[in-house]
Formats: sequence, structure tokens, C-alpha cells
Amino acid sequence: MKQVIVIRTDLKMSKGKTAAQACHACLGSYKKADSSKIRTWEMDGAKKVIVKVSTLEELFQIKEIAKKNNVPNFMVKDAGRTEIPSGTITCLGIGPDNDDIIDKVTQDLKLLS
Amino acid sequence: MKQVIVIRTDLKMSKGKTAAQACHACLGSYKKADSSKIRTWEMDGAKKVIVKVSTLEELFQIKEIAKKNNVPNFMVKDAGRTEIPSGTITCLGIGPDNDDIIDKVTQDLKLLS
Repeated sequence: MKQVIVIRTDLKMSKGKTAAQACHACLGSYKKADSSKIRTWEMDGAKKVIVKVSTLEELFQIKEIAKKNNVPNFMVKDAGRTEIPSGTITCLGIGPDNDDIIDKVTQDLKLLS
Repeated sequence: MKQVIVIRTDLKMSKGKTAAQACHACLGSYKKADSSKIRTWEMDGAKKVIVKVSTLEELFQIKEIAKKNNVPNFMVKDAGRTEIPSGTITCLGIGPDNDDIIDKVTQDLKLLS
């Protein structure tokens, strides 16, 4: 089990901004997930993986794949207090769900270092 | 209302690692918070603020202040799959709670940029 958070790198957000946006995605997607899956995920260490895309279009494509596979997901629109314009879509939370289902959605995405 | 996440900068974690640790803190502290406060916080945009300390000692001090003020909080110990040794304490989630109560705990801490 894992949760994956997909971050847009083209916005060039700082470390702090990135972390805040990831938290929004984490919590938003968590709240959409199945409670029995959440329990299993948490017992298993609540693994969270942060990956990247370089465009908004890619983020939408990943969201579509998540939707087709019935994987819980949550797209974050920034409140725009800092760094970027209000309403900017910054990242996407996916899962928690089974690894094989999540991998169908996020398979080719590289880790955000 | 806000939630604050306090990150150790001395570990020199990458952007992705920082985001993953912040997510652990976010969710861990969220689950300890009062449900009526969570509702108010979410209606108010679920503000999350990422701040920094440069030592583990500071992180423990902040945790003690949170505890004394009965503010929900959650300390994150990394599973150690990447970058840093297993069991390293990486960050602390505080709240959500009222701004004035959170500020008592985190007042002097600088934003993580």
C-alpha cells in the first residue's frame, strides 16, 4: 500500500511551499480513500512517495488515469497567499491504495529529489 | 485556524523527502486534533504553514511547549528508506488549532523557504 503525491516542478516552488502543497494533497486524497484500505496502509507504515511532472497537462493526464482506475485522488488548487498566482493547480494526491493499482497510475513518474 | 509543520533543516533533506516527512506530520497531527476544530479549520481553507528549526533539541523544545499548551502534535520518526538513517526524527506537526494558541508554540520560528 502507498500514497503518491505528484508535484509540478515547472512552478519552481520552494521546499516549504512544496511541502505545504503536498500536505494538502495528502490529506485531501486520504479523506477520499476507503477506510479499510487506510487501516491497512497505516499498519504498513503509511508509505508516501513524492514524484514529479513538469507540466499541468501531465498532471491532468495522471488524474484521468487515476479516475479510470477508480483510485481516490485529490487535486490541489493553491490559495495563492505566497509565491504563485491564486488558483494555480500545484499537485495531485493519489491513494492510499494497493501498490499495483497505484503503479498503473504513476508508473513512469520520477521521484522528486 | 492553522496547522504548522516544523522541519529540521540540519538533516539537509531534499525537497521530495521534506514533503514526504511533512505529510506524515500533517496527517499524524490531524488525527489527534479535535473534530470540531478540524471542521472549522477546513471551512477556513485548511491553512498549513511550514517552518524550520536547525536542531533536534529545538524540535523537542517546541514539542514540550505544544504539550504544555494542550495543542495536538505529532513527531515524525523516519522509516529510513532513503537519504537519512532509520529512526531519525525529522519534523513535528502542530494543530490544527486556533491561531493564537499555535502562535504561542511556534511564534519565533521562521518560514521554510
